[in-house]
Amino acid sequence: MDYNKVFDQAIDRLHAEGRYRVFIDILRNKGSFPNARCFAHHNGPKPVTVWCSNDYLAMGQHPDVIAAMEEALHDVGAGSGGTRNIGGNTHYHIQLEKELADLHGKSGSLLFTSGYVSNEATLSTLTKILPGCIIFSDELNHASMIAGIKNSGCEKRVFRHNDLEHLEELLAESDPDLPKLIAFESIYSMDGDVAPLHAICDLADKYNALTYCDEVHAVGMYGDHGGGISERDGAADRITIIEGTLAKAVGVMGGYITADQKIVDVIRSYAPGFIFTTSLSPVLVAGALASIRHLKQSCEERDGQQAAAQKLKDLFADAGLPVMDSTTHIVPLQVGDPVKAKKISDILLAEYGVYVQPINYPTVPRGTERLRFTPGPVHTEEMMVDLTKALVEIWSRMELRLAA
Amino acid sequence: MDYNKVFDQAIDRLHAEGRYRVFIDILRNKGSFPNARCFAHHNGPKPVTVWCSNDYLAMGQHPDVIAAMEEALHDVGAGSGGTRNIGGNTHYHIQLEKELADLHGKSGSLLFTSGYVSNEATLSTLTKILPGCIIFSDELNHASMIAGIKNSGCEKRVFRHNDLEHLEELLAESDPDLPKLIAFESIYSMDGDVAPLHAICDLADKYNALTYCDEVHAVGMYGDHGGGISERDGAADRITIIEGTLAKAVGVMGGYITADQKIVDVIRSYAPGFIFTTSLSPVLVAGALASIRHLKQSCEERDGQQAAAQKLKDLFADAGLPVMDSTTHIVPLQVGDPVKAKKISDILLAEYGVYVQPINYPTVPRGTERLRFTPGPVHTEEMMVDLTKALVEIWSRMELRLAA
Ligand SMILES: Cc1ncc(COP(=O)(O)O)c(C=O)c1O
Ligand SMILES: Cc1ncc(COP(=O)(O)O)c(C=O)c1O
Repeated sequence: MDYNKVFDQAIDRLHAEGRYRVFIDILRNKGSFPNARCFAHHNGPKPVTVWCSNDYLAMGQHPDVIAAMEEALHDVGAGSGGTRNIGGNTHYHIQLEKELADLHGKSGSLLFTSGYVSNEATLSTLTKILPGCIIFSDELNHASMIAGIKNSGCEKRVFRHNDLEHLEELLAESDPDLPKLIAFESIYSMDGDVAPLHAICDLADKYNALTYCDEVHAVGMYGDHGGGISERDGAADRITIIEGTLAKAVGVMGGYITADQKIVDVIRSYAPGFIFTTSLSPVLVAGALASIRHLKQSCEERDGQQAAAQKLKDLFADAGLPVMDSTTHIVPLQVGDPVKAKKISDILLAEYGVYVQPINYPTVPRGTERLRFTPGPVHTEEMMVDLTKALVEIWSRMELRLAA
Repeated sequence: MDYNKVFDQAIDRLHAEGRYRVFIDILRNKGSFPNARCFAHHNGPKPVTVWCSNDYLAMGQHPDVIAAMEEALHDVGAGSGGTRNIGGNTHYHIQLEKELADLHGKSGSLLFTSGYVSNEATLSTLTKILPGCIIFSDELNHASMIAGIKNSGCEKRVFRHNDLEHLEELLAESDPDLPKLIAFESIYSMDGDVAPLHAICDLADKYNALTYCDEVHAVGMYGDHGGGISERDGAADRITIIEGTLAKAVGVMGGYITADQKIVDVIRSYAPGFIFTTSLSPVLVAGALASIRHLKQSCEERDGQQAAAQKLKDLFADAGLPVMDSTTHIVPLQVGDPVKAKKISDILLAEYGVYVQPINYPTVPRGTERLRFTPGPVHTEEMMVDLTKALVEIWSRMELRLAA
């Protein structure tokens, strides 16, 4: 057994496919997002504009968030010092869970160290409590949901993306007496399309299935209080479990679920990924609390983001750039090749001070490689116009097709 | 299918066994650890002394750590805004990975959102890269290692706790051509005993196995620079992968592995639990960096903690309290019953202002329920004497056995 050879081969495969990842080395400039400093391959940091942050609303630099974190840091220190059960349950955690339950109109809520962990831990545990459970999973579900489903060991039926007929077909052919769970996202983050929440809930009612909705890319950004697509569509009370993150629109870090208190209690009591890990730093929790509270009563950031996204889509379309069909704040440009996607991104960074990450397999299916832009309230129209010009220039330099 | 009934039953089982968990609601007082405020069941917060924090060295209130976090908060904001690959790779992350690799004398290191995730992601991914891999796992390994091993889907052989003969027996009877990994902890956190690192590595050499050591409860606390038991014993270069947390002695939050750069690169490139999640907040990373740097050159906290642990063990033993055999900083008192353990803890909190959490199944095996004390450099001798008196009083009140 030659371990080194096996590891070398694993890395060689990535190079051969053009998808070996090199992480860019940056620091964002608080107070002037989307501006940042880039360290890689330069003598000293070079200024760049970030176009691919998931801190969609720039809440990571919001004065209320910063002030709350600073206060917590000085009041209680850096970390929680324990798991939720053993010394790590702070007053901040309890307050944030109340706030999140309220945001989604549920009776309970539970914090996790990340959105990834909330999906993995909840899905793998819930279905263990329900012997024989069948999970119906949208084919484009996020890796963290797939991990949870896989680790649950239960039976899984994958339905074609947002395809209600296919979902119903699979539900109808399953044993009516077995427990069922339909798992899906509200916004699919790499394409920007939205799931038909009510229609999925109708099917869940008809076939007595539970529903699990990942609102990671919608929380804070949709609905009058930032409750996500489920708030916007008035569907929150029909969804059994809503899952979200504190790391994207909320601007901090961490994940959560909200549901009926009884279900929350089950996950709280049985999920290893919740029980056996140090709880979120109270500093993060304090920041998330301030952010959620702000976004509950302010639409300014949401409106600013929607306007920016629409503007950028229009600019791209007018310039003939292959902007993909997205009904949300996400603006993906189709490239369709991992090497070219990386090349465009490299040129943007080196020559234009624009940072946008190429999105390659396994994040998106092979052949659909893309650049994914996330304009927000802090991106100015001038920045967007400059970006569009840069892309048009690179598109023609690389002899890529522009629409007429 | 009546979902509510199943959930009710799941919760009822916990009540019936006396292990339904109620989280205590506290805030630690930065600057005067181990003092804290307790909110539950009182009119306003009540002062308590925390005896069960895993912020072993009180680094969570260290001025260098607080200053570094405050600086990062104001320089770059609350969160990273992305995964490591997409916008979330800050200069802090890169610096901390260098520092951690250096601490353990390895060429590479990788950060995760928690120690739990580092174990789960690394173990489940590594063995997928090595088809046919057999994992040899200590029977007392932490839930996060067990999750990683289970989710890897590979063959697992459990050896009796720290039992080298049993481990060798299992290694010897396995196909010599298959890849192998021995997974263990350096310090077992609920008992406080230590693994024989060199002897395990000898067996690994003999049977051509990789080694994976969880140093979560040792990093920062053992070795001249806080490199853990592997540094103390001069065994770091013999262990393939060392795993640690930033949430215990380091005082912040997050997890990591260190290993040969090639192995780190494999995990970095293939582990879903690393790839598909927002990276650690730069605020946390900056704090951990300051903490690790401090602990590399200061033995004051380590020495203080060892002295405190020895003192408390002596006081307990002299008072006839059933202190369990521990060769480290962990001081467990055996109770052996979940209801009694909880009762003692409740009395301590209500009457003595002492917070120590009962440790029940599944954290420890049934019948070995205990109170687990983690004295540190901030616990004074007076606090320890008072604690011992309180315990003796409760022990006799509850008619529990004291040694002669
Ligand atoms: C759809 C979806 N769910 C869950 C997650 C994980 O959330 P977090 O970054 O908080 O781990 C992500 C991205 O990171 C995501 O895109
Ligand atoms: C042995 C061991 N490994 C790993 C972990 C997980 O580390 P973290 O708290 O950083 O998730 C813990 C405790 O939480 C532990 O006790």
